[in-house]
Amino acid sequence: MPFPDLVHPALGAYESAVTMPADFAAFWQATIAEARTIGGTVSMVPADTTLKLVEVFDVTFPGFGGHPVKGWLVLPKAREGRLPLVVQYVGYGGGRGFPHELLHWAASGFAYFRMDTRGQGSGWSTGATPDPVGSNGQIPGVMTKGVLDKQDYYYRRLFTDGVRAVDALVAQDFIDPERIAVCGGSQGGGIALAVAGVDDRVKAVMPDVPFLCDFPRGVRTAGRDPYGEIVRYLAQHRDKADVVFETLRYFDGVNFARQSRAAALFSVALMDDVCPPSTVYGAFRAFAGSDKTMVEYEFNNHEGGQTFQDRRQMVWLAERFRP
Amino acid sequence: MPFPDLVHPALGAYESAVTMPADFAAFWQATIAEARTIGGTVSMVPADTTLKLVEVFDVTFPGFGGHPVKGWLVLPKAREGRLPLVVQYVGYGGGRGFPHELLHWAASGFAYFRMDTRGQGSGWSTGATPDPVGSNGQIPGVMTKGVLDKQDYYYRRLFTDGVRAVDALVAQDFIDPERIAVCGGSQGGGIALAVAGVDDRVKAVMPDVPFLCDFPRGVRTAGRDPYGEIVRYLAQHRDKADVVFETLRYFDGVNFARQSRAAALFSVALMDDVCPPSTVYGAFRAFAGSDKTMVEYEFNNHEGGQTFQDRRQMVWLAERFRP
Amino acid sequence: MPFPDLVHPALGAYESAVTMPADFAAFWQATIAEARTIGGTVSMVPADTTLKLVEVFDVTFPGFGGHPVKGWLVLPKAREGRLPLVVQYVGYGGGRGFPHELLHWAASGFAYFRMDTRGQGSGWSTGATPDPVGSNGQIPGVMTKGVLDKQDYYYRRLFTDGVRAVDALVAQDFIDPERIAVCGGSQGGGIALAVAGVDDRVKAVMPDVPFLCDFPRGVRTAGRDPYGEIVRYLAQHRDKADVVFETLRYFDGVNFARQSRAAALFSVALMDDVCPPSTVYGAFRAFAGSDKTMVEYEFNNHEGGQTFQDRRQMVWLAERFRP
Amino acid sequence: MPFPDLVHPALGAYESAVTMPADFAAFWQATIAEARTIGGTVSMVPADTTLKLVEVFDVTFPGFGGHPVKGWLVLPKAREGRLPLVVQYVGYGGGRGFPHELLHWAASGFAYFRMDTRGQGSGWSTGATPDPVGSNGQIPGVMTKGVLDKQDYYYRRLFTDGVRAVDALVAQDFIDPERIAVCGGSQGGGIALAVAGVDDRVKAVMPDVPFLCDFPRGVRTAGRDPYGEIVRYLAQHRDKADVVFETLRYFDGVNFARQSRAAALFSVALMDDVCPPSTVYGAFRAFAGSDKTMVEYEFNNHEGGQTFQDRRQMVWLAERFRP
Amino acid sequence: MPFPDLVHPALGAYESAVTMPADFAAFWQATIAEARTIGGTVSMVPADTTLKLVEVFDVTFPGFGGHPVKGWLVLPKAREGRLPLVVQYVGYGGGRGFPHELLHWAASGFAYFRMDTRGQGSGWSTGATPDPVGSNGQIPGVMTKGVLDKQDYYYRRLFTDGVRAVDALVAQDFIDPERIAVCGGSQGGGIALAVAGVDDRVKAVMPDVPFLCDFPRGVRTAGRDPYGEIVRYLAQHRDKADVVFETLRYFDGVNFARQSRAAALFSVALMDDVCPPSTVYGAFRAFAGSDKTMVEYEFNNHEGGQTFQDRRQMVWLAERFRP
Amino acid sequence: MPFPDLVHPALGAYESAVTMPADFAAFWQATIAEARTIGGTVSMVPADTTLKLVEVFDVTFPGFGGHPVKGWLVLPKAREGRLPLVVQYVGYGGGRGFPHELLHWAASGFAYFRMDTRGQGSGWSTGATPDPVGSNGQIPGVMTKGVLDKQDYYYRRLFTDGVRAVDALVAQDFIDPERIAVCGGSQGGGIALAVAGVDDRVKAVMPDVPFLCDFPRGVRTAGRDPYGEIVRYLAQHRDKADVVFETLRYFDGVNFARQSRAAALFSVALMDDVCPPSTVYGAFRAFAGSDKTMVEYEFNNHEGGQTFQDRRQMVWLAERFRP
Repeated sequence: MPFPDLVHPALGAYESAVTMPADFAAFWQATIAEARTIGGTVSMVPADTTLKLVEVFDVTFPGFGGHPVKGWLVLPKAREGRLPLVVQYVGYGGGRGFPHELLHWAASGFAYFRMDTRGQGSGWSTGATPDPVGSNGQIPGVMTKGVLDKQDYYYRRLFTDGVRAVDALVAQDFIDPERIAVCGGSQGGGIALAVAGVDDRVKAVMPDVPFLCDFPRGVRTAGRDPYGEIVRYLAQHRDKADVVFETLRYFDGVNFARQSRAAALFSVALMDDVCPPSTVYGAFRAFAGSDKTMVEYEFNNHEGGQTFQDRRQMVWLAERFRP
Repeated sequence: MPFPDLVHPALGAYESAVTMPADFAAFWQATIAEARTIGGTVSMVPADTTLKLVEVFDVTFPGFGGHPVKGWLVLPKAREGRLPLVVQYVGYGGGRGFPHELLHWAASGFAYFRMDTRGQGSGWSTGATPDPVGSNGQIPGVMTKGVLDKQDYYYRRLFTDGVRAVDALVAQDFIDPERIAVCGGSQGGGIALAVAGVDDRVKAVMPDVPFLCDFPRGVRTAGRDPYGEIVRYLAQHRDKADVVFETLRYFDGVNFARQSRAAALFSVALMDDVCPPSTVYGAFRAFAGSDKTMVEYEFNNHEGGQTFQDRRQMVWLAERFRP
Repeated sequence: MPFPDLVHPALGAYESAVTMPADFAAFWQATIAEARTIGGTVSMVPADTTLKLVEVFDVTFPGFGGHPVKGWLVLPKAREGRLPLVVQYVGYGGGRGFPHELLHWAASGFAYFRMDTRGQGSGWSTGATPDPVGSNGQIPGVMTKGVLDKQDYYYRRLFTDGVRAVDALVAQDFIDPERIAVCGGSQGGGIALAVAGVDDRVKAVMPDVPFLCDFPRGVRTAGRDPYGEIVRYLAQHRDKADVVFETLRYFDGVNFARQSRAAALFSVALMDDVCPPSTVYGAFRAFAGSDKTMVEYEFNNHEGGQTFQDRRQMVWLAERFRP
Repeated sequence: MPFPDLVHPALGAYESAVTMPADFAAFWQATIAEARTIGGTVSMVPADTTLKLVEVFDVTFPGFGGHPVKGWLVLPKAREGRLPLVVQYVGYGGGRGFPHELLHWAASGFAYFRMDTRGQGSGWSTGATPDPVGSNGQIPGVMTKGVLDKQDYYYRRLFTDGVRAVDALVAQDFIDPERIAVCGGSQGGGIALAVAGVDDRVKAVMPDVPFLCDFPRGVRTAGRDPYGEIVRYLAQHRDKADVVFETLRYFDGVNFARQSRAAALFSVALMDDVCPPSTVYGAFRAFAGSDKTMVEYEFNNHEGGQTFQDRRQMVWLAERFRP
Repeated sequence: MPFPDLVHPALGAYESAVTMPADFAAFWQATIAEARTIGGTVSMVPADTTLKLVEVFDVTFPGFGGHPVKGWLVLPKAREGRLPLVVQYVGYGGGRGFPHELLHWAASGFAYFRMDTRGQGSGWSTGATPDPVGSNGQIPGVMTKGVLDKQDYYYRRLFTDGVRAVDALVAQDFIDPERIAVCGGSQGGGIALAVAGVDDRVKAVMPDVPFLCDFPRGVRTAGRDPYGEIVRYLAQHRDKADVVFETLRYFDGVNFARQSRAAALFSVALMDDVCPPSTVYGAFRAFAGSDKTMVEYEFNNHEGGQTFQDRRQMVWLAERFRP
Repeated sequence: MPFPDLVHPALGAYESAVTMPADFAAFWQATIAEARTIGGTVSMVPADTTLKLVEVFDVTFPGFGGHPVKGWLVLPKAREGRLPLVVQYVGYGGGRGFPHELLHWAASGFAYFRMDTRGQGSGWSTGATPDPVGSNGQIPGVMTKGVLDKQDYYYRRLFTDGVRAVDALVAQDFIDPERIAVCGGSQGGGIALAVAGVDDRVKAVMPDVPFLCDFPRGVRTAGRDPYGEIVRYLAQHRDKADVVFETLRYFDGVNFARQSRAAALFSVALMDDVCPPSTVYGAFRAFAGSDKTMVEYEFNNHEGGQTFQDRRQMVWLAERFRP
């Protein structure tokens, strides 16, 4: 099948043209500080399941605006000492689902937290977290929800939720604050990059086929949604391209990557027409940390490495965090 | 091409099984009363266009929650006395667009108002009206936005906007309050039915291939979106069907039709797989007014009668309102 | 979404390789002279509509071969002096429709004429004009109708109709012969370019995402019909490519553009895979007039600028023709 | 896969509701008489091929209006006495192609004639016969070409060509006029039925998955073109359904079948969504001859029996015509 | 969306017309006896993973013909006494994948075995088990592999592997032979039904949206593959329908269901066009055991209940097997 | 339509990067020698048809492993002396069909043999030849059947069958061993190239739009199957790309072309997205024979030249073999 984007050597050499706003760091510091100021309480309710090897908690923590955000926390029942933590963010349209769905991190000795996604959680797995904030006229989906102003943009809230999830968990006495990892595929990878870019407690980041990187190129290269939501928005709002791309600069994984020092395990799929490989390489190349690795899947589309990459991650993170 | 739904004689004999909630009228009276209590101001700013035969005003009026809602008001420049009014609501995903787009009502001697649709206005025409209210997790689009509670459902706000548009215009001295018509295609037809069902100032209603009628059947019969949004939501939220259909009863065009006494000109397309013809006939048959006509387009899908139906409406309404 | 064709800077620099036949001008002079010699009568019958601000005439004029061609003429009822004229040609498959469909030109003070398209008028709007001339074996559609000989090609008749429409209207005493504009989208834009290229009475031309430009490139670049009709024809008639492309040179918008001195407002959509943007730029760059402007819609496919472009045209033409 | 139409026992019991015009026979007698009166000459030019076992002639004969129609005549080189004749008509969009394409009839001892299709011959095989007659506005294709008047309808010309082909061949001294068979698939089957219905020289007819039968049902049942051309026409020309179906009665295979006494070998495919099986059974059941057989292919779509049916035909016709 | 098959009440009342061959039981007894006679050795090699809460073994056991078949065995590390066993079979095209993929059964205290699928394991997950037996000409896939003779049919080998997997595990001292369950989705559900139908050691069976049930109806009702493989085969091999359906009787889940006495938890999706709901109900209604439950998912296609059904199964089986 | 691959001049200049294994010739010599050693008997049974100008034999010959392989042999009944032979191999998924399907070679004075394809013969024509050899887990189809080892790969058997067909026929006394040609389209063209590359009795080869050439490029360029089977295999078996491409080197038409000295008539279609034109040019350029011609079809997809190319072949081969 034809490759939908650059191939090597151009691919490896690609540098994103996304520019860094002068107030990028300040914008995010203010955003997170504001959420922390609003605060809120964390609740952890044991969940009723048939699972015997792990403990499961139904967690609610205060996200952006103090809004309650849900997640599942899964801990190995047999444990000693503080646990390393893996926080996973979820792909576009999905939610936290059920706690029995993903057990390999807990089964490998990690505390595992899967954060729900506000206002999504209906497309391919279920969630239970509303997004109580409205929007300008928009294309169905969240890509253009509030996109006319960086203060209103949906991802300002979601990325902040991602940081506040770490806040909620790092405060628990069974978590080792020196061994925090974030991960996720597609949108989840984009959130992981954002959190790793603004929160230096994060020591490892594992973005798989990450979305939300190099928007100007993604919008013009991806053959399928969700980048297409922005195309369709601009196809109608023909006079709004400048303001939209100005907003997106503040949410671009390339800019978050430029700020992160965590260890990083990226993956990319060369036939991916949802998150084109050059956008992933754009973020990878910009990534400021020195311990970074890219895993390539030449013949995959956006499904990427799937369980092959899970296995790779389990080994890579076990080497670094020794659970 | 095969018909996607019932054909005659079963089609004409079809009666919707949608049930009327005991508190349906009360729910809507309370909703509209609450919006009127909140109130707000109406502004009408002359628009800068090249149009010389009509006057155009960029209108902002207070809708549900007092939220500002936009619309274009177009008046024939050559006029005398109070004008009959046609309010048009817009189909799914669209917005009010530009004032020069639809001039045939004003050119026929009517005051014409095209109401913007909150939070939409991006899919096939542009709008400028936000929906400042958030939502539970949902399928992209508005069909499941707030659907878990009738108080939160998106269409509670939009239908209320529809009534408040009439409030805003009927107060103007150039409008004849005895000659108010509402119309629209697809979603716009659904809104028109709702407004005609709760507001007896409306003397004529012209729903074309109306959407939002007979939800239980629409969801199980339509081959394409937007009814499919509800299917996809329930395909994930497998435990929410009862609560969803309970909410939808309060927004069903069949129930609004049961309450309306206006003169009515419906249209239906027999190959429509977006708004299946039985759902339209379900509303038509339930329609309580005695001056009602159905126009059928046997070989059309959801585009329905288009300009043929415009022409039909122009003649039909001119006979009744004598502009 | 990926761009289907050249992007800037290559796009702006693109020069069409279409060659000009030595007898191009002579061919068209002879063709038009022949049609004028055959002649015929123009009839203008007032149409029965509800419209009060405009007068509508059902016009029949003699086109190519003296064949009767229909059109709607719409005049502002409130007018004084001679009116500037806008003639609009219709896109592929459509016809003149109903007179109430497009009123913005008349509402802006122009005489507006929408010419029917012979033998089409069935695909997305209705027409009432036959094409009484037969054809060689062909692909369904008109792209290969008579394509084996430039004398027989369908567009020889249709372009001639376009000039004869101007003939019919310029003779009316309510039209100002110094203020003639032609316009149209897609096929309509191609006809407009052709008429502007052979008739110097035309002072302004407004082709939107014009079709029928730079055939050799369009046939090899467009991802969808109608250029695909030619591809499918040549896929069967594997021995006819030379004769087909020889015919098409005489009908290529690039060659008409090389001959026109009118003021021009083009539009192009960069994601257009029906009329690839390089083919539009090929005509634009070749356009011989000095007052020429290109409006770009980066994120649109063949729908182009739609009502945004209408608004742009209304302002642009009002500045030049001062209705 | 789901069946797109009736299944047994309803299928076998289906009777078409197509009505027979009182002047059906008179219309066709007049049409054919008129063509014979116009007359014209038949030419047979030996073709230059590498074929050694057969003789090939490039035939031109006068069809409807005396228009020249092409065909390939293939004769076994080793022959004695007069030959039985098989005339084949071609499916929608195709033409006579090359003479080497179909040799099994000549190789079995028949004179074989493949008639070209006027104005088609470009979609899946090539033809060389123009249709010199024009048309009203139409949908691309021939289904609505002239459909507003039975005198103008395209198939009036094509069916007449089919009879005139028999006229041309039966006059040759190497043909046995008592052993004339006609055949064809899809449109070719429809032509064969028409010819067998108006020309009693035809002693055997072999329609495979015939098209052009039971138009009212075909138009409302077929999932794909060409019946869809009529649907699309009526979807625009919303006021023309009555006149269109009135025309089609004169061209319906069901009515031709009611008039034919030839031996008949039909085939039908139960998953055919181009020529729905009930339309084929409608013609079969109406077929007036007593020696009639239906071959069913349960799991085929419109490809029908293909080479299985060829083999069946070869045996069936050999039994009757003993070449 | 329209339902692709029967709905209630016809759905619940549907009885399959599949007939039981007189030698059905004998055929399967002989087949399994033959495989046991050939025998072979079972190997269990500890797998190298990061998983700490479970033990994983890479199992190879002798299947049909003694051919080596792979599987993953996962045991809770913290365990006491013999474990109840869950054997899962895999859906069409997939393989056993990696052991970390599905941990919820082991995490709930069960021994869990996921059997690889011979000759598949490439479409959506990977496998490592060849099918060393060849085939007649066939449609790509396994549905027609050897279908001309019940002795050669692919599923004779695969179903036998399913029984031999139970043989291999029941012999281990950590397994409780009184608590054996089998499960699987789609093809996996069909295998589970087959194993439960011939092996009375199986005390519980959990088929989700099972495939391979009621072939005659599935082939004529399903809108998508794999049933379509059989349709395409018969569309070419037009003379083989009888022999194919005769073979399939010996592999039909309806017939296996008639023989099973296990407790059963079925699931069905009413919008499933891969395994139409009537085929599932056909098997459910025929199921001979008295402790049987059907879980319905009204708005799902072939994905069925997914994690909702997992959760349901975990509770249902825990009640019966008390791990 | 856009070209899916290189265009001229890059196309004509393209050189394949496929490398030749050092043991390529040895591998094939050993393979063929082994098959000849196993041997087997050839049977030729007169077939019962209605055909009178030709004789037809149902041939069974021993292929790879001595497995019986079928074919139709068609001879002109009127013949004298030994006949030149054309062996045709069949495209992907098809089989030998019926003998009456392709008669133009026999009708031109050649002995014509159409070889069946083991284990295929179900997709678009029927076959009667099993492939008695099994496979590792694979993608449906034959492209990955045994691909992990060159000894097991499906095409090792099929190409050997192709040589053994020549063995079977050249031994007949009515065949002239000095006039042997092989041909085929797509997969058939790939087989023809392979046979011509290992068997110097073949004096002419006519590959049309050949498949199985330049695998590394085909897999990365083709937009449709069957190359896509390999992509999907590698998308799951992410760790097997090296071994797969190592196997494929031994079956690459480019390498066979490097070894052939026959006269060659290639054809290529420039819009072919099944067998991309660069892969065909890769083989053509590598072809070692000096009498080689490429026929180009610019506007065709994988259907290529069809009957135009048949005609071309008939003339080209008649010039060389003078039947």
